[in-house]
Amino acid sequence: MKKTFVISTLILTAAMNMAAAEITSPSGDLKLVVDVDAQGVPVYSVDYKGKTLVAPGRLGLVSDETKFTDGFRIVDTDTVTVDRTWQPVWGEYSDVRDHFRELAVKLKADNPDREMTLRFRVFDDGLGFRYELPLQNGPNYLTLKDELTEFNYTDNHTLFAIPGDYDTDEYLWSETTFTELPEALNNYTRHTEAQRTGGTTIQTPMLIKTTDGVYVNAHEAALDGYPAMLLDVDTANYAMKSHLVPDRLGVSAYLQLPFNTPWRTLIVSDDARDILASQLIYNLNEPSKIEDTSWIKPMKFVGVWWEMFTGNEKTWAYSDDHSAKPGVTDYTKLTPNGRHPANTENVKKYIDFAAKHGIDGVLVEGWNEGWEDWAGYRKNRQFLFDKPYPDFDLPALRDYAKEKGVKLIMHHETAANAADYELQLDRAFQFMKDNNYDAVKTGYVGAIIPRSEHHTSQWMVDHAKHVIERAAEYQIMVDSHEAPRPTGLARTYPNWLAQESARGGEFESMGGNPPSHTTILPFTRLKGGPMDYTPGLFETRMSYYNEGKDSQAGTTLARQLALYLTMPSPMQMVCDLPENYERFPDAFQFIKDVPVDWSDSKYLEAEPNRYITVARRDKNSDDWYVGAITDDKARVATIDLSFLPKGEKYVATIYEDAPDADWKENPQAYRIRTVDVKPGQKLKQRLAPGGGAAIRITKKAHKK
Amino acid sequence: MKKTFVISTLILTAAMNMAAAEITSPSGDLKLVVDVDAQGVPVYSVDYKGKTLVAPGRLGLVSDETKFTDGFRIVDTDTVTVDRTWQPVWGEYSDVRDHFRELAVKLKADNPDREMTLRFRVFDDGLGFRYELPLQNGPNYLTLKDELTEFNYTDNHTLFAIPGDYDTDEYLWSETTFTELPEALNNYTRHTEAQRTGGTTIQTPMLIKTTDGVYVNAHEAALDGYPAMLLDVDTANYAMKSHLVPDRLGVSAYLQLPFNTPWRTLIVSDDARDILASQLIYNLNEPSKIEDTSWIKPMKFVGVWWEMFTGNEKTWAYSDDHSAKPGVTDYTKLTPNGRHPANTENVKKYIDFAAKHGIDGVLVEGWNEGWEDWAGYRKNRQFLFDKPYPDFDLPALRDYAKEKGVKLIMHHETAANAADYELQLDRAFQFMKDNNYDAVKTGYVGAIIPRSEHHTSQWMVDHAKHVIERAAEYQIMVDSHEAPRPTGLARTYPNWLAQESARGGEFESMGGNPPSHTTILPFTRLKGGPMDYTPGLFETRMSYYNEGKDSQAGTTLARQLALYLTMPSPMQMVCDLPENYERFPDAFQFIKDVPVDWSDSKYLEAEPNRYITVARRDKNSDDWYVGAITDDKARVATIDLSFLPKGEKYVATIYEDAPDADWKENPQAYRIRTVDVKPGQKLKQRLAPGGGAAIRITKKAHKK
Repeated sequence: MKKTFVISTLILTAAMNMAAAEITSPSGDLKLVVDVDAQGVPVYSVDYKGKTLVAPGRLGLVSDETKFTDGFRIVDTDTVTVDRTWQPVWGEYSDVRDHFRELAVKLKADNPDREMTLRFRVFDDGLGFRYELPLQNGPNYLTLKDELTEFNYTDNHTLFAIPGDYDTDEYLWSETTFTELPEALNNYTRHTEAQRTGGTTIQTPMLIKTTDGVYVNAHEAALDGYPAMLLDVDTANYAMKSHLVPDRLGVSAYLQLPFNTPWRTLIVSDDARDILASQLIYNLNEPSKIEDTSWIKPMKFVGVWWEMFTGNEKTWAYSDDHSAKPGVTDYTKLTPNGRHPANTENVKKYIDFAAKHGIDGVLVEGWNEGWEDWAGYRKNRQFLFDKPYPDFDLPALRDYAKEKGVKLIMHHETAANAADYELQLDRAFQFMKDNNYDAVKTGYVGAIIPRSEHHTSQWMVDHAKHVIERAAEYQIMVDSHEAPRPTGLARTYPNWLAQESARGGEFESMGGNPPSHTTILPFTRLKGGPMDYTPGLFETRMSYYNEGKDSQAGTTLARQLALYLTMPSPMQMVCDLPENYERFPDAFQFIKDVPVDWSDSKYLEAEPNRYITVARRDKNSDDWYVGAITDDKARVATIDLSFLPKGEKYVATIYEDAPDADWKENPQAYRIRTVDVKPGQKLKQRLAPGGGAAIRITKKAHKK
Repeated sequence: MKKTFVISTLILTAAMNMAAAEITSPSGDLKLVVDVDAQGVPVYSVDYKGKTLVAPGRLGLVSDETKFTDGFRIVDTDTVTVDRTWQPVWGEYSDVRDHFRELAVKLKADNPDREMTLRFRVFDDGLGFRYELPLQNGPNYLTLKDELTEFNYTDNHTLFAIPGDYDTDEYLWSETTFTELPEALNNYTRHTEAQRTGGTTIQTPMLIKTTDGVYVNAHEAALDGYPAMLLDVDTANYAMKSHLVPDRLGVSAYLQLPFNTPWRTLIVSDDARDILASQLIYNLNEPSKIEDTSWIKPMKFVGVWWEMFTGNEKTWAYSDDHSAKPGVTDYTKLTPNGRHPANTENVKKYIDFAAKHGIDGVLVEGWNEGWEDWAGYRKNRQFLFDKPYPDFDLPALRDYAKEKGVKLIMHHETAANAADYELQLDRAFQFMKDNNYDAVKTGYVGAIIPRSEHHTSQWMVDHAKHVIERAAEYQIMVDSHEAPRPTGLARTYPNWLAQESARGGEFESMGGNPPSHTTILPFTRLKGGPMDYTPGLFETRMSYYNEGKDSQAGTTLARQLALYLTMPSPMQMVCDLPENYERFPDAFQFIKDVPVDWSDSKYLEAEPNRYITVARRDKNSDDWYVGAITDDKARVATIDLSFLPKGEKYVATIYEDAPDADWKENPQAYRIRTVDVKPGQKLKQRLAPGGGAAIRITKKAHKK
C-alpha cells in the first residue's frame, strides 16, 4: 500500500518539474541560467555581456551514504534583490556595497528521497553559489567523497595558477593556457613535507583571462566546516571541476545536515581593475561575530625574524642540542649556541627602534622552548607556548615594551602540530594576556599532526576557526601562516588581520621572488583577505649578509615602498633589519608615514602579472597614498589624480626609482622629490625594471 | 683514512664482545640469561625453579631510519640489587616492597653505529625489561615500525586471552591453548567501531598457565610515549611476539632519542595467589609526580547511569532531535524527549539517596549538550563540556549537593573525539572546579578523532597522559573509560583512580557476563590498575525493567557484594538504582560498610577463571573484609582466618548465597548471619553457582 502511494507521488511530482530558472546581475551584464538535464542533473551556465562565459556545467555532491548528483527536479525557485552597505572594521574601504540578485533553486529527487537547494547570488562584479543540504528523510550524516561542480570555459584562455597541493600554496605563479598547463606544472619541484596532487590540478584562488579579454577570479567564500577547494583541469575541454582536499583516509568532509557549503565564487570583469576592487568575497561572508571590535587595531610591526633568513647563521633555537625536549629538558642547563637573536638585549634594540620610529609592534620569533629540532620530526610535543627560553626575559621585556609604548607580538610556531596547539591554546592565550600581548603570528611549518590531516583538509579548516574564535574570546589579533588560505572570513572574524598563505617576502632570501610575483598576488591570493607579505626590504642582496649567498630579491628599494599600497594589510610588517632602515632614513620616512587602514581605494591601472597602480585614502586623515609597481620591464605609470577632491591644493612626495635603477643591477637607486599636484592632473611616473613608486599626497598648508 | 680507522675499531671491539650475562631473582627461583647470537641478535631466556619458562627469544626494534636488531655485541653489563618499600596513596597495601636484582646490558653495533641498553629487573614474583635507546651517532628521530620482542614458551600451555584489537578490550575471555587459539578467536564477533587485528593476535595483559602449573601474567608497565603492546601468537611453536598498535598510517611510534620503552613484564609463580598479590607492575612505574596528594580521596559513588541501560528507553540525550549541534543549536528551543534522567529533580533524588546512606558521590551522565547523535558520526565537534542541558540546573544541583555533603562527579564522554576534548580540556576542568566537582569519568566510545589514531596508538597514550597530568593540575581525580588499558601509571599519577578498559558490569544488560568473567579479570586486566567494574547490581534480571528484555546478569546478589573485595578499586561504583537498594536494605548495609582503600590484603584461594577468595584490612580501621567468588559451579571456600591478629575476639557478619541460590534461577536468595570467629579458624563457606560471599569481621566489643 505504501509503495503504491510513493509511486503515485513520484509521477505527480515528476510532472511538476519547473522550467529553467534565470537571473541577471543588477547591471544586466551577467546572466545565469540554472536547469536540470534529462537525467535530473543540475546544470548552470553564465553569460557575460551577451557571450557565454561558463558553458553548462553540472553541480552535485557525492557521499558514501547518498548522492546529490542526479534524479532531481526543480520544485521551487525564489529570487530576491538585495542592496545594502556595511562597514568593515578595517580594509580598503570604509563602506562596502553588497548588491546582488539572488536565485534559490530547490531540487528534489525520489527513490531515495533527497532535497537540495542551490543558492546563487549574482553581483555586478561576479557571482557566488553554494549547495544547501537541509535535513533529509534519508541519511543526515554524510561522509563526503567528492563535489562535482564544473566550470566549463569555452576557449583556450590564459590561466594564472599554482600547482594543486594539499599542504602548501607557497609557489610562484604560472601564466599559461589550458593546453600548456601540463608543461607549466611539470616545471614545479615538490615541497618536502607537502603533498602535491597528481594530474593537472591547480589551487584556488586562481585567475583566468579569456581570449576575449574577460578576467575571472575563481575562488570560494566563507570556507567553514568543509575542506578547501582545488580545481581539476580538463585541458582538452577547457574545463575545471572542484577537487576537495581529502584527509589521508580519502574523505573530503564529515557532514551533519543541515549544512551549507562555502560559496563558489567567480569575480568577473573585462576591466582588470574591477577584479582588484571587488569586495564580492567579503560580501558572501557573514557579518562580524565579534560585537565589540574596539580592541582590533591595525598595525605596523618590526620583528626579530629577518635576521634568521639572511644567511648569517642566526637561529630560532637557543641551543644546538638536538636532544632537547620541551617539558622534559631543563633549558637553563643547555649550552647556548650564541646565535639566538630572540634574546633580551637584542629584543630591547628592536623595541627602541620601534619606539623611535612610531612602529606599533615588535614580533619576536624563537622565544620559546622547542626550536632545537623544530620541523619535520613529527613529535607529539614540539613546542611549549608558555615557556620562554632562558635568555628571553619576558617580564623585563614586557615592562620595557610597555614603558616605550610598543606592543610585543607573540609567535606561535606549531611545527604543524595543530593538535598539540589546541591542547595548549587556552594557556597560550592566557599567557599572552598575562604578559600584555594582544597579537599573535601563528605558524604550521611541516606535516600536519593529527597525521590524518592536510593543511587544508576539513579538520584544519575547523582548527583555524577554533583558533580565531578563541583568540577573539581573549581579544587577541591573529596573523596566521601556513593556515588554509583566506576566503573572506576576516569579515566575520575581524581579529583575523592577516594570513600568509602564499609565497611571501621570506623567499627573497631563498631564491627570490621575480618582480611579477607581486603583480599577480593581488589578482589571486589577496581576494580572500590580506597577506602578511612582509614588505619593506631595503637590503635586497643576500650577499650583503653573507658573501656566499647569491640570492637577490626581485625588487628595487622604491618598489618595496609601493608594496604597502599594492599589498594592503592591516597588519603590515616592516621587515628589514633596523640597521638597514638607518642606512636609508629618507626612504624609511615613507614606511613610517604610510597607513595600514583605508577609507577609500582607487585602482588606476592594472594588468595581471604586469603592473598595478592604486591610490588609497588614509582612514584617519585626508591624505592619499599611491603605489605603482611593474614586472621586470620598465614602465611609465599614468596616475590620474581625479580622485583628489577639487578646491584644494596638494603636494606629493614621490619616492621613485632613480633613472638608472634596476632590480638586479642597481636596486637601491631611488630618488625622493616633492611636487605640487592638482586634482585631475595625470602624473607620468617612470618605474624601473622590477621597480615601483610610492607617493604621499597631502593637502598643501594654506597660507596664514 | 677515516675508513681504515673505523675498520680497525670494528675488529678490536668485535674481539671485546663479552660473555652472556646472567642474573637471578633475590630468592633464586627465577634465572635470566642475556646474550647475543652469532648474528649479533640480542636474545634472552628465563628459567623458573630450574626449568625453562621462556626459551631463548630475540629482542629488537625496527624503524624506518635504522635498525636495533642485529650486529650487536655486549660492551658492558651492570648489576645492582635494590630493596625498598614505598607507600601508595591508595591501593591494596599500605606498604609495597620493591625488591629486585637489575641487569643492564649495554650493546653496540657498527656500520652504522648503534647503541642500545637492555635493562632487566628480576623480582621474586617475575621480571620486567625494557629497551633504552641513548643519543646515537646515527639518526635520533625514529619512525618505529616494529618491536621484535619474543616470548618463546615451551609447551602447549593454557592461555587466558582476548582478541587483538586496536580499539577495544571489552571482550569476554577465552580459556584455550596455543593450538586451540585460532578456533577460540574465530568465535568472537567484531565490534562495530573497533579494528580487530588479523591472525592470532591477542591483547595484554593476558595469563598463561603452563603445563607444569606455573602461572604467567604477560603485560607491560609504565606505558608512556609509546603504543600499547599486543602479542602475535605463533601457535605451532608456542611463541609470542610483540605487536605494537600502529596508527592508521602504519607507524607504531614517532620517537626522539634518548628514549626508554615501557617495561615488558612477566609476573611468574606456581601459586596463583601470588599473581593476584603481585605489585610488580606498580614497582616498575615511577613514584608519584604529584607532591601534595591530600586531595586524592578514594570514594564510592552512585550514578544517573544504570537507568539508561535497563531497557526502559531512558536516554543520555535531552531531545530526540538529531539535527542538534553543540555550539550552534539553542537547546532550550528543542523539544525534550521526556526520557532524560539527568534532570534536576532526578539528580536530587540520587543526592538524597547518597546523603542518606553515606555514599560519597553522584555521577551524572547525559548532563551536557551533544548526546542527540552522540556516537558513530565522526563529527569534529560532538560535545561541549561546559554546556549543561536545559533541564540540568547545575547551580542548583551544585548547591544542593554541597548542602547534603555529597560530591557530584562529572562525566566527559568524548565520543572518542580526543582532539576536541584536548581543545576544551582547560575550560572543561575549570568549569568543574567552578562548580565544586573534583572527579571526572571520561569516555571514548566510537572511532577515534584524530582519525589517524586508534584507541591504543601512541598519540592516544600521550593523550591519556595529557588528560591525567592536566587533571592533576586542577586537583581532579579521573576514572577513564575506553582509554589505553592501565600499566601501573596510577602509581605515578595517583589521581588516576580507576579505568574501565575491559568488559564491565554494563554488559550485564547487554547479554550478560558469565560468572567466570570476574574470576579471570583480577589475574589479567587488574594487574595494570583498578577497574571501574561497577559492582553492586541487586536486580540482575533485565526483565524486571522491561518484560521483553531477557538479558540476565551472571551473578547472585551476594556475589555482587563480594566483588567489592575481589575487584578492588579506590573509585567504586554502587551501580544499581536506589529503588533496588531500598528493596534489600540489609544486604545494602554491606555496600555502605565496605571500604575502598586497604592497608593489607591476603589472597586466600585463587584459580584463574574458577574462584578467588581474598581478605583485606580497612586502611582506616582494624576491620577485615573477606570476599569469595566462584564461577558457574557451586563451591565451598575455605577461609583461613590466620590473618586476624591473635589476642582478640571477633564477630563476622556473613552475607552469603541462600542454600537454594543460583545465578540463573534464584539470584536474589541470600542470607545474612553473624557468628563469632577466632584467629586461625578455618571457615567453610558455601558459594552458589555464580555466587559469592562477603564478610565483615570486626573486633568484638569488650565487656565493660
